[in-house]
Amino acid sequence: MVKESSGKEKKITFNIKKEENFSEWFSEIIKKAELADIRYNVKGFVVFMPWAVRCMEKVYDLLEEELQSTGHEPAWFPSVIPERNFKLEGEHIKGFSPQVFWVTHGADTKLDERMALRPTSETAMYQMYALWIQGYTDLPFKMYQRAQVWRYETKATRPFIRSREFYWIEGHDCFATEEEAEKQVLEDIRVTEKVMHKKLGVPFLALRRPEWDKFPGAVYTIGSDSLMPDGKVIQQPSTHFLGQGFAKVFNIKFTDKDGKERYVWQTCYGPAVSRILASVISIHGDDNGLVLPYNVAPIQVLIVPIYTTKNKKGIMKKAEKIKKDLIEKDIRVKIDDSEKRPGEKFFFWEMKGVPFRIEIGEKEVKTGKLTLFLRDVKKRATIHEKKIAEEIKKEGEAFDERLRKKADIWFKTRIIDCKSKEELERALQGKKIARCDFCSISKEGEKCAEVVEKQLLASVRGVRHDKFEKASGKCIFCGRPAKHVVYIAKSY
Amino acid sequence: MVKESSGKEKKITFNIKKEENFSEWFSEIIKKAELADIRYNVKGFVVFMPWAVRCMEKVYDLLEEELQSTGHEPAWFPSVIPERNFKLEGEHIKGFSPQVFWVTHGADTKLDERMALRPTSETAMYQMYALWIQGYTDLPFKMYQRAQVWRYETKATRPFIRSREFYWIEGHDCFATEEEAEKQVLEDIRVTEKVMHKKLGVPFLALRRPEWDKFPGAVYTIGSDSLMPDGKVIQQPSTHFLGQGFAKVFNIKFTDKDGKERYVWQTCYGPAVSRILASVISIHGDDNGLVLPYNVAPIQVLIVPIYTTKNKKGIMKKAEKIKKDLIEKDIRVKIDDSEKRPGEKFFFWEMKGVPFRIEIGEKEVKTGKLTLFLRDVKKRATIHEKKIAEEIKKEGEAFDERLRKKADIWFKTRIIDCKSKEELERALQGKKIARCDFCSISKEGEKCAEVVEKQLLASVRGVRHDKFEKASGKCIFCGRPAKHVVYIAKSY
Repeated sequence: MVKESSGKEKKITFNIKKEENFSEWFSEIIKKAELADIRYNVKGFVVFMPWAVRCMEKVYDLLEEELQSTGHEPAWFPSVIPERNFKLEGEHIKGFSPQVFWVTHGADTKLDERMALRPTSETAMYQMYALWIQGYTDLPFKMYQRAQVWRYETKATRPFIRSREFYWIEGHDCFATEEEAEKQVLEDIRVTEKVMHKKLGVPFLALRRPEWDKFPGAVYTIGSDSLMPDGKVIQQPSTHFLGQGFAKVFNIKFTDKDGKERYVWQTCYGPAVSRILASVISIHGDDNGLVLPYNVAPIQVLIVPIYTTKNKKGIMKKAEKIKKDLIEKDIRVKIDDSEKRPGEKFFFWEMKGVPFRIEIGEKEVKTGKLTLFLRDVKKRATIHEKKIAEEIKKEGEAFDERLRKKADIWFKTRIIDCKSKEELERALQGKKIARCDFCSISKEGEKCAEVVEKQLLASVRGVRHDKFEKASGKCIFCGRPAKHVVYIAKSY
Repeated sequence: MVKESSGKEKKITFNIKKEENFSEWFSEIIKKAELADIRYNVKGFVVFMPWAVRCMEKVYDLLEEELQSTGHEPAWFPSVIPERNFKLEGEHIKGFSPQVFWVTHGADTKLDERMALRPTSETAMYQMYALWIQGYTDLPFKMYQRAQVWRYETKATRPFIRSREFYWIEGHDCFATEEEAEKQVLEDIRVTEKVMHKKLGVPFLALRRPEWDKFPGAVYTIGSDSLMPDGKVIQQPSTHFLGQGFAKVFNIKFTDKDGKERYVWQTCYGPAVSRILASVISIHGDDNGLVLPYNVAPIQVLIVPIYTTKNKKGIMKKAEKIKKDLIEKDIRVKIDDSEKRPGEKFFFWEMKGVPFRIEIGEKEVKTGKLTLFLRDVKKRATIHEKKIAEEIKKEGEAFDERLRKKADIWFKTRIIDCKSKEELERALQGKKIARCDFCSISKEGEKCAEVVEKQLLASVRGVRHDKFEKASGKCIFCGRPAKHVVYIAKSY
């Protein structure tokens, strides 16, 4: 953004290969494409820069559209939670206490009660739900907020992947029955599927987490694991079936049709837009820089006019005309008429991940036939000026479908069955997700999970929630009969 | 939102008159229309509820559209500012220290350095600007963020008007010359004019604040004062010319065309969406509830089908058809087919401020002629089903223009010239803004301003920035020759 016309960025070299050194590639792209600046002087906090913010605003739009169309209403809750709320739910406080930033003073005055900067908002929201929900006609009650949360992370932080302040949506729903709440969990997974996979091309596994890895206070957690190019999985939107635990603690009751008071059944859902962007960057990007899905790209079409002083006027006129036609159809377009050479412009905007480029020169003005450069496959297509907006929209859909299909195939090849600890080790070394028979994801399996963590520096991610996979053999760790087919991977 | 179908809100009575008791009216409308819930258990923090959030999201959209179209890029800076940054600019720390919430601990660990929850972001952003701005081609540099800020307010808090956490946009711009920066101040005022006045119908005075009332660290401040029905002004978006004070402290320099290093000239601008909504609610609302401008209303058109069991199917089909036609043209529409009686529905949605209502019964299905109820004037207009979207859009524009004109006339009558302290006192008692001759808004006038504050419980708001008003007489307080024509009012 900022420097694009400064001339200082003329020599954008991008000589780190994603496949060879993903970690460096990721850092480099964040710097070069000006996505975030890690030089802010508080550990673990970064500045999200315009190009990334514009992408994340789009991700917000996509998520909010889905949430609203499934009956969720938006609210904004306070960022601070009084300590007494925070302590109400035992498991929750145990899980989140090590991660809480505390606000203790207003100016020089010590506050009567210290306040947590919300690491998540159950304990802020549910006391209000208790006031709002009275009868069965108030249910289902579906609400979300777009918000940032703060966590005093002790793990290493990286922009977009893990930082001490991150941007997400949290949905918190209440139902009259257990069955409806469990259906909501499935609806949440469908929202993830629709937005993250269908629209942004990020494949994932919806995994029911083992007992020891669920959300603090939940009955069970379904995490969405997507994969990074270095073979580590990253948890994407997770959804939690909370049962009635929080309802009992926060006293969220309703009078049912039969006149009896009952506690509500709850779920919550937490897609982080900064993390989703991390996967989008990492999965689709290549050795020339970002490749942004048409759906989120801040600029979808870049127009580069190619002129001499003689024909400049006519060519710029044509470029402006095309820009206008595209804007009218809500296509995000920019003309780069800076003084850089065309080649430099191409290179710069390819690095920024703009899906399409149209070059307009003498020939294009005459024929009305335009060449569309496709960022992902680096090939050219011909489109016609007359129906340009329609054609771009079609190409946009095709673009995103190509990204998704490519990612799907890649993801599929990265999951392999392992019959022994040795195979598992090889799989992990080969940057893969291992699928294997495992004793159990309930408490009794925790010992084997510890082996995975300590010896293999990986973790048991859980069992498929979207389909039943039957275990037929023995746990590859303890040899007991396997109750579950689990996925094991290194993780962020 | 939540309770709309619960049946519990059946008896919405609204028997407080806005003109008679604005303060109670305001509290009542916030409760009845479910805009905010003040029962959150931290002093000065409220929950913003869906109906208000949807309005404020629209205000954000309107502001961001203007800011982007004037060359601003969006960013997200951390919410926390290390104490050392905060202390760099002397005036700034003096002004904001009494208002800062401090984060001191991460879990049980005392932080090496405590962090301010940003009350405003100069001291977060400008250290980054120093890294980003190098040469004259980097200028102008125009950036904004949508964000919430926190202030440990000691004044009484009220939802939307003043709370310890509020939602705003802050724009922070840098220029090569003083002249350009001062032009930006004017552009900021134009943005306020376009969004708050033109689109939302809230009139205001752009006033250059007296020396003693400017933003801490600014050379001068232009505040936008709009008026509440109780005769108190409320500060709306203010814009500040910062000169080079912050630039020198944060070392924001650029190499100019002549090869010399110079400090940038800065401005900042801060429209608070929660406050803007406070004015929208207060100015347009009436004794039946909210009246929302078409531009921000979460629902612009409410359709009420009126049917018997016999003709329900046909009427619902027509209602759905109209809804579809409107949605296609991006009009926000809802069918209320709940089990409430039509009269109840009318009453409820009038209270919520929905601009238009269409009732669809047997007759409407037959004739294709529809009756549009206009919330503001409580009159009916006829529209035709065939061109419904176009007609609604036209009516929407007319609706907002009516609101604006009405507010403008009201506002104009509320400003009166005063030639003496007695006239001034009467004006303030009469819920008016007084215009009078005043010695000076620079330091030498501070004594007279103290008289205003202590004796009249009002304040000197400043001089017009958009036009020059020549003082001809003597200061009505000290009798010295008046340098300025000032506006004096009670204020929030």
